[in-house]
Amino acid sequence: MWQQRDITLAAHPRGFHLITDEITRALDEMPPVEAGLLHVFIQHTSASLTLNENADPTVRTDFESHFNRAVPENAPYYQHVFEGSDDMPAHLKASLLGASVQVPVTCGRLNLGTWQGIYLCEHRDHGGRRRLVLTLQGE
Amino acid sequence: MWQQRDITLAAHPRGFHLITDEITRALDEMPPVEAGLLHVFIQHTSASLTLNENADPTVRTDFESHFNRAVPENAPYYQHVFEGSDDMPAHLKASLLGASVQVPVTCGRLNLGTWQGIYLCEHRDHGGRRRLVLTLQGE
Amino acid sequence: MWQQRDITLAAHPRGFHLITDEITRALDEMPPVEAGLLHVFIQHTSASLTLNENADPTVRTDFESHFNRAVPENAPYYQHVFEGSDDMPAHLKASLLGASVQVPVTCGRLNLGTWQGIYLCEHRDHGGRRRLVLTLQGE
Repeated sequence: MWQQRDITLAAHPRGFHLITDEITRALDEMPPVEAGLLHVFIQHTSASLTLNENADPTVRTDFESHFNRAVPENAPYYQHVFEGSDDMPAHLKASLLGASVQVPVTCGRLNLGTWQGIYLCEHRDHGGRRRLVLTLQGE
Repeated sequence: MWQQRDITLAAHPRGFHLITDEITRALDEMPPVEAGLLHVFIQHTSASLTLNENADPTVRTDFESHFNRAVPENAPYYQHVFEGSDDMPAHLKASLLGASVQVPVTCGRLNLGTWQGIYLCEHRDHGGRRRLVLTLQGE
Repeated sequence: MWQQRDITLAAHPRGFHLITDEITRALDEMPPVEAGLLHVFIQHTSASLTLNENADPTVRTDFESHFNRAVPENAPYYQHVFEGSDDMPAHLKASLLGASVQVPVTCGRLNLGTWQGIYLCEHRDHGGRRRLVLTLQGE
């Protein structure tokens, strides 16, 4: 059993944002699988997806603080600068975190740990809407 | 053909640990597939999984040294500090390394490169036992 | 429907290289799937795969510059040094970026975003040829 659909996320400000509810809603509209995997893929190179703590919003603030220090803007060795100072760091952050997450689906539901949520990592100042491709497989 | 099962890893000290044998044992108890994929997912946000060198234990020591420097404890800008100084770095390391690995399965066996092993990356001082969800698919 | 095949990439110099064309050619030789996923796996621990910007080559130069600073050679705390100063950083970079990418396949084609390409990340000075395992699944 294979299902594939696109969803578009509303524009989010630069930072880390919980999108578990959006993904769960999309999953609920697909035929349920007893055991399978949901692949969530972002079709962009300056935003990314990750799994992390779903409760305390300061975790997501600290993610933004950390990644801004680990991947600085205006590094003197950047050559790809014509799209703005937030652009090259966004590409680097996107590859550090990755363009997809894949989550087990069990009895029709995301089989996440108690504290796990899905983050949209928006690395641009004005990234706009972001397109995801969801692929559900299982039986 | 879909198979899904949970396994629980014994508590490991903070650091990087080879768990290829545990995963192989679990795979051997599942029906064999000729060609497929094994998805290994950790249901936590302060431990992670990665693939790396399976021979020299100093590689794993150097991983711990590097990540402790790249993601320091007690950074002055951390707000999420109430669970201890190892907690926020653990969340960041977990997203840098990722919550899952997916390995090709060929003729019933993990199709890893000669030097590849599966690491449990334990980022907490006292992380305790860790739950994995293994999903095998193929034919 | 499952298809699995190996491909070997020609030796590339240290740095980040677009290999979307090689992957697309291999996909075109497999039976087409309407909806599915292509898993691309590298069987090495000192080279990796990622998705990022496919147009401006200075993005790839900046990736090399950034990762060389973020994961330095000759760090005084490295113990795994007998294979050369580029070796331990290569292992660390490989885990930061990951050993696989998985891309949706839709109507027989990689469903990448407009600006996304697949990068081979060659972290060794003389890494030689690199083996990939491609697993296509779908229906």
